[in-house]
Parts: sequence; C-alpha cells; structure tokens
Amino acid sequence: MRHFHFTTALLPEGWADDVVIAVEHGVIADMSVGGPCPPFTDRLPGAAIPGIPNLHSHAHQRAAAGLTERSGPESSGGADSFWTWRQTMYRAAAAITPEDLEVIARHAFIEMLQGGYTHVAEFHYLHHAPDGRPYADPAEMSRRLVAAAEAAGIGLTLLPVLYAAGGFGGEAVEAGQRRFACDADGFAALRAALPAPAPGHVHGIAPHSLRAVPPDALRAALEAAPSGPIHIHVAEQTREVEECLASRGQRPVAWLLDHHGVDARWCLIHATHVDGAEVARMAASGAVVGLCPTTEADLGDGIFPADAYIQAGGRLGIGSDSQVAAGWADELRLLEWGQRLVTHRRTVLAGGPGRSTGRTLVEAAAMAGAQASGIAAGQIEIGMRADITVLDPVRPGDAALDTAVFAPRRPVRHVVVRGDCVVRDGQHGLATVAAEAFRRVLDRLAEAV
Amino acid sequence: MRHFHFTTALLPEGWADDVVIAVEHGVIADMSVGGPCPPFTDRLPGAAIPGIPNLHSHAHQRAAAGLTERSGPESSGGADSFWTWRQTMYRAAAAITPEDLEVIARHAFIEMLQGGYTHVAEFHYLHHAPDGRPYADPAEMSRRLVAAAEAAGIGLTLLPVLYAAGGFGGEAVEAGQRRFACDADGFAALRAALPAPAPGHVHGIAPHSLRAVPPDALRAALEAAPSGPIHIHVAEQTREVEECLASRGQRPVAWLLDHHGVDARWCLIHATHVDGAEVARMAASGAVVGLCPTTEADLGDGIFPADAYIQAGGRLGIGSDSQVAAGWADELRLLEWGQRLVTHRRTVLAGGPGRSTGRTLVEAAAMAGAQASGIAAGQIEIGMRADITVLDPVRPGDAALDTAVFAPRRPVRHVVVRGDCVVRDGQHGLATVAAEAFRRVLDRLAEAV
Repeated sequence: MRHFHFTTALLPEGWADDVVIAVEHGVIADMSVGGPCPPFTDRLPGAAIPGIPNLHSHAHQRAAAGLTERSGPESSGGADSFWTWRQTMYRAAAAITPEDLEVIARHAFIEMLQGGYTHVAEFHYLHHAPDGRPYADPAEMSRRLVAAAEAAGIGLTLLPVLYAAGGFGGEAVEAGQRRFACDADGFAALRAALPAPAPGHVHGIAPHSLRAVPPDALRAALEAAPSGPIHIHVAEQTREVEECLASRGQRPVAWLLDHHGVDARWCLIHATHVDGAEVARMAASGAVVGLCPTTEADLGDGIFPADAYIQAGGRLGIGSDSQVAAGWADELRLLEWGQRLVTHRRTVLAGGPGRSTGRTLVEAAAMAGAQASGIAAGQIEIGMRADITVLDPVRPGDAALDTAVFAPRRPVRHVVVRGDCVVRDGQHGLATVAAEAFRRVLDRLAEAV
Repeated sequence: MRHFHFTTALLPEGWADDVVIAVEHGVIADMSVGGPCPPFTDRLPGAAIPGIPNLHSHAHQRAAAGLTERSGPESSGGADSFWTWRQTMYRAAAAITPEDLEVIARHAFIEMLQGGYTHVAEFHYLHHAPDGRPYADPAEMSRRLVAAAEAAGIGLTLLPVLYAAGGFGGEAVEAGQRRFACDADGFAALRAALPAPAPGHVHGIAPHSLRAVPPDALRAALEAAPSGPIHIHVAEQTREVEECLASRGQRPVAWLLDHHGVDARWCLIHATHVDGAEVARMAASGAVVGLCPTTEADLGDGIFPADAYIQAGGRLGIGSDSQVAAGWADELRLLEWGQRLVTHRRTVLAGGPGRSTGRTLVEAAAMAGAQASGIAAGQIEIGMRADITVLDPVRPGDAALDTAVFAPRRPVRHVVVRGDCVVRDGQHGLATVAAEAFRRVLDRLAEAV
C-alpha cells in the first residue's frame, strides 16, 4: 500500500484540500480529505486532477513531426494537403526498424507523460517488414510499443489496426501501405501473437477507416473481437466523405451508425465532417468522439462541431495523433479556440453559465479518454485507477485548470500512473537518455524525410 | 568588441556554418563564415536566427492571462465574448499599482525572452492612477515598463496610447477606462514626461483605435509625432466594423487608408476583418499588419486573410498581445494553422513551391517586427542590431525552423539582445525571482479577477 498527499485535488464532487489516497495494485483503495497523513506518505504538492488519457496516438509519427512543412514541388504548383503529407509520412514510416520504433515510442511516451497524459491508446498500423511481409513474430512491432510503454511507465491500450484495402472500391494497397496491410488471416495471426496485456494495459482493435476496411472485412473483424475498445478513423477529410457518398450513397458516420451497433465500446476518431443528424446520432450512441485538434489543424482537416455535439450530450476526448504536440493542454486549448474562431464567441464549451472552460474540458477528456481506452479511470475516487496529474496552480480551484489550458507555462509538475510517480518536479528519469537515442534514430532516418 | 560563434546561422543569403560575429555598441560590426574564432569568443551552439520582435504587447495583461475563461453569469445565459472579456480585463487593470506593473512586466518580458523574442513593442495604455488622475509624474507607469525592460534585458519600443473616447460617437470613456484616458493636452504632457530612450529603446505613438480616438484627435496626435512608429488597433471585432460603417460610412481599414498617409511607419494591429480591396491597399501601403494569433483565437476575433495579404506582397509580424502565449513559435504556428483550418490545405503561407513554411514565417516576422518596432534589425548582417535567437536544431537547415514552429519542444536555447546573452541554455538569471514576485502580485490581485 502506497500513500500520496495532494495539497488540493479535483474529486467528483469538486475541489478538496489535503487529500490523501492509498493505492493498492494500481487502484485507489482508500481516500481521506483533510485528515492526517500516514507515515511515509509521498507528498506531491500542487493541484491533483484525474489523469487524462491520450486516446489517439501513432507513436512512430513522432519521427516526422515538424518535418513535413515544406510546400510541394514546382510540378504541383506548391500545392500541399493531407494527401501529400501522407506520402511524406509513408516514406518516413518505410525506414523504421523494430529497434527504431521502440526508441521513437519510448521518447514519445515520456514526452506525453511530461505533458500530463497518464495513458496512451496506440492506433498501431506499422506491422510488417518494409517489404510487406510479416516479421518472424507477427507481433514484433506491437511488442516494441509494449516495451516502450513499460520503460516510460505510461498505461497502454494497444489497438492493432486492420488495413485491408487502398480505397472505398476495395483497391489493393499501394506500395507505401505495404507495412500496414493485413487480410483477415493475417490480422487474426497478428492478434493471436500479441503478448497477454501487462498490468495496466488493455487490448482492443482498430479497423483503420471505412476507406481501408471493406464492409465484409469490417464485419468479420468486429465478430472476432467481442469485447474491448473499437477505434476507427472517420470523416477526417472532405474527400473521404465525397468518396463514401459516391461509393455507398451515405456519409461515413451515417453509414457506420446504420451498419454497426456503435456504442460505448467505440471511439470515432476525428469525425470532423458531420452533418446535424450525424452529430445527434453520435451523441446518442454513447460512443466517444476522439479529437486531435493540433493534428487536425496541422493537416487542414477542419473544425469539428464540438459545441453542437456537447449540447447534444456527446462525449469527447483528445489525442496527440501525429505528435505535433505532446500535452493535453495544447489539444484542449485548440479545441476551444477552433470553436471561438468560427463562432466569434468565448468560453464556447464551458457547458453552462459560470462554469470554467478549463475544468469542463479537463473533466470531459479524462472521463471520455478512460472510456475509449477501456480502463476504470477518469476520476479520483476509490476503485479507480490511481492515474493522477499534479499541476502547479497559479490560483486555487478551477482557475488552476483555466490557466493550465489557456495560458500554460509548463503547468505539469508530477504524474502518477497506477500509483507510480513517473514524473516528479517535471522530470522523468529516462528523459535525457531517451531523447538522445531518439536524436540518433532521427539522424539515421534523415534520408527518408 | 564582443565575439559570438554559432554552429550555423540563417544569413540573408541562406544558412552558413561556423559563423562568427563581432558586436560593438549593440550592432554587428563584423562577421565571418567558416573562419577561425578570435580568442575569448562566446560559443553559443545551435542554429542562430534573426531575433523576432514581439510587435504588440500589453504587459499588464499578463496578470489576467488564463483567468478569464469562466463563462458569463446565469443572467447573460452564460454568453461570453470579447466585450465581456474586456470588462474582466478592466477590473484586473484597475487594481495594478506602479510597483505591480513593474513586477508583472519584468516577469512577462523574461518569459518573452525565454520564448525567443528579442524586442517588445509595448502598446501602453495603463497611464493613470485608479481614479483616472495622472500620477505626479505623468510618465510613472511608462517608467515602470522601461525599468522592467532594462532589468529583463529585452529591447523596448514604447508606444504610449492615446485613448480619448468611449466609442465612435465620441462618447465619454466609461469608468473602467479612466486609467487609459487622455485628452490632447494630457497626451502631450505624458509624452513630454517620458525619459529619453535608453540604448536599444525607441519611442512611438499608439492611437488606440478608431473607436477610441475621434478624427480630430487622431490628426492632432499624428501631427505632434512626425517620426517614429505609429501603431493602431483596427478591425479586430465585427461589431467594431459595423459601428464604423454606421458612423463613418466606411470600414475601419478603408477609412484609415483614405484619411491618413498610412506608410512604413504604421503597424495595423489585428486588421482581422478586411475585404479584398482593403487587403490589397494595406499590402501596397508598406505598413506592417501586426497579428496576434493566440489572442485573436482566445478572444474569438476571427481569422485574418493572411494568404491573400502575403500573395499581394503584404508585410506581417506577430505579437503576444494578451500574453496567453509567451513565444513566437505559438503565434506563427497558429497563424498558419488558422489558414489551414479554413482552406483545408497545408503549407499555405510557405510562399512558393519547395519552400519551408517555418523559414518563410520566421523571416517575415523578424523583418516586419523590426520595421514596426523602428529598429535596424531582422537580419543577421553587418550594421544590424545584434539581436539573435539560437535554437536547438532537430535537423540542420530550414527543418530547424519547421520543427521549432510546428512541433516545438522548447526549441529556444540562447537569446542575444544587442550583444548581451540574456538567455543561456534556456535560463534567464532573474527568471526565478521574477516569477516569485509575480506570484505574490497575483495573490494580491486575486480579489480583482
């Protein structure tokens, strides 16, 4: 049994001072407010909040973050889009060895912890050798992610991706997608080869998108995974919506909701381009919408109608996706700012009069992130996982969250994952060596990007 | 004569390795590339780039940054906007003493240096005592900003603000604006009381906005300031555009261009809501448009048509304004991302095929910021001020700027202002004590915000 003391903590019923939790097997086994500390309590001064899961990460993309900002060649008139970005990202991905992936992911996961995340859902599609053949162990790359998460000390929901086609017409995958592609047998073999989840880890599945998973393959994959989280990219780009309309006569989210029992197991990633009916139906489904605001801005995806979705009772969480940012504050701030830029209002997502926008967003992302990750977390209370981030509060109460989200100056002080304090005073024990190893890998990959 | 060595440096003609500069009286007096270092050269490893001026700052607003994110009261239905934010900001401003202002500004200026800025243009309107009467020294508050800039070691362009009316109809100022308000005589007295500019400092003027400066007062103020920078807020909010149309029959930017000789002395702050003709005329005027993307997002202002403006040859720089962010990377990234979110393209402001978006934006902001600040800076070359920021480069060349802007992980390593290395290895000598003093002031102001 370990004990932690927090100066103040955000509990389900609100802020409380002098909170002590007792942790057993990674779970909050007991809690007291205002009372004395047991001997040998670990004091983590600051404002404790529920850990926020990063519900959408492609760890390997850390190696290309910020390196795809050169405009297209003369032959294209300099035009650049999500689709040209994707070609650059594929080139970078093609060169990554299993050893590289472990180095890149370890560094990315440590950055996430330092950015305040306590858990990461890896939407993992870099399965095979560069020639497209499975490694001798089909789960080789998955094992690298598991090892990286264990070294960093972050919780992991591993979501092996089914990538079965190159487009809505069931086209063969293109050369740049060979490392991702699986047929039904290959996907089954990959899942069978996965190690049993480590403590704090969860397994789910990720059909990549409607364009990369034909209807039959999607149905078969869901039947083969009767429990655990289901994540899917959907309606990220307008071109994807147009292609879905052309080939299936429906918008992607509408098609998904009509053809599958989308419920609380599901996490719809991006869902950027949705109409009013889709917004209402997603909100009613109990699924989580997984937004990645920094990536969605970087890739020019567009702005999700978050205000309408939340008004309809929808649940949303956030993810780092392409790793342009490493902390939840950046995602939540840009989520709200995107709404402000198009509505010309402020505190759009505060959720009601007199409410703190920062607190509303933090609580939503913690709860929805836990649901999408398939873990019992998202609140500081008995029975929940002891995943807690401690902020350096400029002010007491909700203002600590407003400043952390909207005017951040390195607010994350300590991070506790399943009762282990993995970041203390902003420092992670492996940060320096992990960053050095990452830079060496980047140098080696320099030819590719 | 001091000497500095940079591993690599962005010169007007491109990147060069092993660059040594000699600095005399704050100016680059000599430069060599690839040659030997003189004895006692200060080696600042990394990628040196021209210092970027922060061309629009209200230092005192640092005290309210992140503390205005609670939605409006029940009576307003929770509605919140620029205009309700302004009331909160006024309440915070009302409580700030001269001593407070020096503490707040010193902390804000040190944060700016650590964020990579080398110079700040203070659009300074908090002139008078809380009851609206001038201090015994009418320039009391200005002197506090000068003292703060000198302690921090940042360059300063001081822009005392003329705030003469409460609206387009020439209404009296409201109670919350008493500390700002000047008539013509008061403004002249304030300007006459200013200390002579310290080395590295510049004086200009800032007519606050068309709504706060009636036409006659604007004309008189410009006549009284025949040289130096002229900054003005313009077309930030749609309501301001509507009021200008209603009272003067023209949009604000069009009115300004028709009634005054807007030229390279001018910096048009925000200019968010402009039509195509205004974009073309601003670009042709030689003025700088001063964008503050993080503040413009936070306040729900909207998105400036930067792509069209740059295509027309317009000059733009960036400012921290309400201090929600403290570095130029945050401003430049959001400037580009705003364009991507509305166009659904990438590398929108790269400026041509094969160009680095990060480099294009950094070079533009350095040059335009220097112009708007009235200083000979913005490029690393002989005769220019020795204002230089040294980045920790993930990759050589332009990629160092792309990653610093688009996937930043604390990229600023060293900052040199007029030949003084004021930030070394990310550290500023006064950062800790300045932050502690700032927190004490915040605690005292807690009643106000």
